[in-house]
Amino acid sequence: MITLEHCQQLDQQDPLYPLREQFSLPGGLIYLDGNSLGALPKNTAGRVAQVVTQEWGQGLIGSWNEAGWFDMPQRLGDRIASLIGASPGEVVATDSTSINLYKVLSAALLIARSGHPARLRVISERDNFPTDLYIAEGLCRAQGGTLELLEPEDLAAALAPQAAQDVAVLLLTHVNYRTGAMHDMAALTAAAHRAGVLTVWDLAHSAGAVPVRLKADQADFAVGCGYKFLNGGPGAPAFVWVSPQHAERFWQPLAGWWGHAAPFAFTPDYQPASGIARYLCGTQPIISLSALACGLDTFDAAEAMGGMAALRAKSLALSDLFIDLVEQRCTGHGLMLVTPRERERRGSQVSLARGQGGYAIMQALIARGVVGDFRAGDGKQRADILRFGLTPLYTGFEDVWQALEQLHQVLESGEWQRAEFNQRKAVS
Amino acid sequence: MITLEHCQQLDQQDPLYPLREQFSLPGGLIYLDGNSLGALPKNTAGRVAQVVTQEWGQGLIGSWNEAGWFDMPQRLGDRIASLIGASPGEVVATDSTSINLYKVLSAALLIARSGHPARLRVISERDNFPTDLYIAEGLCRAQGGTLELLEPEDLAAALAPQAAQDVAVLLLTHVNYRTGAMHDMAALTAAAHRAGVLTVWDLAHSAGAVPVRLKADQADFAVGCGYKFLNGGPGAPAFVWVSPQHAERFWQPLAGWWGHAAPFAFTPDYQPASGIARYLCGTQPIISLSALACGLDTFDAAEAMGGMAALRAKSLALSDLFIDLVEQRCTGHGLMLVTPRERERRGSQVSLARGQGGYAIMQALIARGVVGDFRAGDGKQRADILRFGLTPLYTGFEDVWQALEQLHQVLESGEWQRAEFNQRKAVS
Repeated sequence: MITLEHCQQLDQQDPLYPLREQFSLPGGLIYLDGNSLGALPKNTAGRVAQVVTQEWGQGLIGSWNEAGWFDMPQRLGDRIASLIGASPGEVVATDSTSINLYKVLSAALLIARSGHPARLRVISERDNFPTDLYIAEGLCRAQGGTLELLEPEDLAAALAPQAAQDVAVLLLTHVNYRTGAMHDMAALTAAAHRAGVLTVWDLAHSAGAVPVRLKADQADFAVGCGYKFLNGGPGAPAFVWVSPQHAERFWQPLAGWWGHAAPFAFTPDYQPASGIARYLCGTQPIISLSALACGLDTFDAAEAMGGMAALRAKSLALSDLFIDLVEQRCTGHGLMLVTPRERERRGSQVSLARGQGGYAIMQALIARGVVGDFRAGDGKQRADILRFGLTPLYTGFEDVWQALEQLHQVLESGEWQRAEFNQRKAVS
Repeated sequence: MITLEHCQQLDQQDPLYPLREQFSLPGGLIYLDGNSLGALPKNTAGRVAQVVTQEWGQGLIGSWNEAGWFDMPQRLGDRIASLIGASPGEVVATDSTSINLYKVLSAALLIARSGHPARLRVISERDNFPTDLYIAEGLCRAQGGTLELLEPEDLAAALAPQAAQDVAVLLLTHVNYRTGAMHDMAALTAAAHRAGVLTVWDLAHSAGAVPVRLKADQADFAVGCGYKFLNGGPGAPAFVWVSPQHAERFWQPLAGWWGHAAPFAFTPDYQPASGIARYLCGTQPIISLSALACGLDTFDAAEAMGGMAALRAKSLALSDLFIDLVEQRCTGHGLMLVTPRERERRGSQVSLARGQGGYAIMQALIARGVVGDFRAGDGKQRADILRFGLTPLYTGFEDVWQALEQLHQVLESGEWQRAEFNQRKAVS
C-alpha cells in the first residue's frame, strides 16, 4: 500500500522539487490543470509591469527597437526550439495554434500536391482536438480534398503505401487532449514518408511536457500552444515550426507584412522572408508575448537539472503514482483509466472516464481544492472524461496523494450527486 | 501671426483638455505618434496587474468563466462598434489586422463571385498600407484573380459599371497611413455597389480618430487596429466587422473552435456560430486584450463631452493649427504638405514630404523631445514622409506649437545634417 509518508519522501528525494518555487500558486489548492492553463510564474507580474509602464509608457514607439519587441517572435521561437528538438531560427512564437495550423497545413497541401495532384486526402484521428479538425475541414472545403477521420489503431493500415496513394497529409496531435495517449512520432512519420505523405504535428500537449524530437524524427511541420505546459498565460501566443527543407518552398497563405523580407520597406509587392520568418503575419501582442517569455524562463532552471529528460522522468513517476492510487483507493465507482499504462505511450496527464456524472465529480473535487478538468463525452461512443494534468515543474508527489484522497472522499461520500455540483457553467 | 499665448489660450478653452489626464506620458515629451502606437492609459498597469496576479494567478482556469475572459472579444467588440457606426453584436476584437483582413476578403470574394464567377479583380490603392496589399496578393494567387493597384484619383472611373464588370471587391484603407488623406466612404461604397462591387475598409487610422459610419455608409466589411488611436498597447488585438447581411452567408477560412457554434461541445464537425462570432478562430491573448479594454475606457469620458464628434472637431482644429504653423514657421526648407487641406478629406494626422533627409530631420526632432515618425519613400515617385499623429484625447494646442517650434529650430540650425541623425535603426 502506498502511504502519504511515502509520497512525502518522494518529494524530499526529488531534485526538481525546488522548481515549484518559481510559481505563484494559490495556497491550499492542488492544481492539476496545467495542461489547460499553466500556472503563473512568480516573475511574470514584474516583467509585465515593466513592459507596460516602462517599455510602453516611457519608451513608446522606440521600444520596437530598444526593448527588442520587433524580433520577440524569433527570440522566443529559438527558446521553444530547444524544447522540441528543433534548431534556432526554425520556430516563431506567434498567433494562435489554430491559425498556425492553417498556415502549415496550407503549405503542406501545396507541397504534397505539387506533382501529385491526386493526393486529395488529409487523414487524422477522430478524437483529435476539434479545432485541428475544423481548420482541416475548412481548408479541404476551400481547396478541394477530403478530411478522413480514423481511430488511432487504423492509422498504420491507412498509411500503407498502396492505401495512401491519394493521401497528402497526416495531421495528428502528438498527445491526445482527452486521453493523454501519445503517438509514436518517429514510427508514424516514417510510415507516412514511405507512402509519400507529409506530417503535421500539433504539440499543444507535448511542448514542455514530454521530450519532442522533431528533427530526429524527421517531422515536416509542427504547431503548438504557449499557455499550457509552457506557462505563458491565458491565450499566450502559439508557435510554429517548419522543417528547413520545406520552409521556403511556398508562401504560406497568411502573407502579411511581418513575414515580408523587408517589412519596413513598405513595398507594394510581397516578398516572403527567408526561413521561418515568412510564417509571421501581423503585429503580435507584445504584453502577452512578454508573459510567454517568463513562462519559458521556468525551463531555464530545469535545464541545469537535466532538462526535458529529467522533467519527463518525474512526469512519468507522477502519473505512475496517480494510476496506482486510483487503483488502490478509487475503484468500485465506475471510473475507468483511459490513459495508456505503457509509459512510452503516455503524455503528462492522466484521464479517467465515466459513463456519466463526470462533470459533477469534477465540480465536487474543485470544491475540495483539487482542480482538474472535465471534457464531456457525446453520450454515445465517447465517455465523459476527468482530466488531471501533471506538470513536473510544480506538481509534487504529495499533491498527487492529496488529490486522490479527495477524489476518494468525493466518491465514497456520494456528495457529487448534490444539485450544486450538477449545474453547468458556460465554459468548463 | 499665431503665437504661443494663443495656443495656450486654445488649451484653456478646450473642454476636452482634461482627458489627457487619463494618460501616462513621459514628462518633457511631445508625443505625436499615437497613429503608430497610442499612449499608455493610466489605468492599464493596474488592470493588467490584476489580470496577471488575481485572475490568472489565483483564479487560474476558472477565470475563463468567472473573470469573463471567454466573451471578451465580443464585449470589446461591442464597445468598438459604438466608435465606428456599427451595432452591438457585429464586431469582435481578435487576432491581427492582417489576419482579419484575410478572413473578410476571403468571404467578400466568395460572396462577390457567387453567381458572378467572372468577377476576378480586386482593386485597391497603390499607396494602401502594404500588408493589406500582401494579404490581397496572397489570396488572389491562391484563389485566382488579380489585384489591381490604382491611384486614388482613378478609383471613380474604375468603379464605373461598364469598367467594373469583372471587379469583385474594392479594398481601401479609409485614412491613408502615409498622407493622412481620408476617402469618402459613403460615395465610394455607393459607386462600388452600383457596379456590383463589395467594399472592404481598413479602419487602422480611423477607429478612435475620425467618426466612422459603417452602417449609414452601407459598407460591407471592415477591419481595424487596436494599438493606434484605440490606445490598446503594443500589438493589441485588432477587430473585424461584417455587415449583418453578409455575416452568415459563408464560412470564413480560419474556421477554428472559437468561431464554432458550440466550442465546448468538442464535436468533430465544424458548425459556424451565428453572426460575427464565426469570425473568431483560436484562443485570444487575454492579457493584451485586457490592456485593449483600458484603451477603450479612455473613450468613455469623451462620450460625455460629445464623443467622436467632439474629438473630431478638436482633431481638425489641431491639424489646422499644425498646417498653419508649418506655413508660418517652416517654409523654405523643401517640406511639402501632403495631407489634404480640405477638412473632410483629412484624417487625424499631418504629413510632410521631403525629397530626402526626412529620416534625419525626424531623428533630430526626436532628440529634441518631439516624437513623430518617418516613412521612407522609394527614391522615385514616393517621397520621404514625416508623419505627425494628432490624438485629440491627449494632444494639446501648445503641444502643436512646441512641436513646430522644435521643427523650426531643427530646420533653421541645419543640425539634422549631423552624422548621428543619419544612422538608420532596424525599425523606424
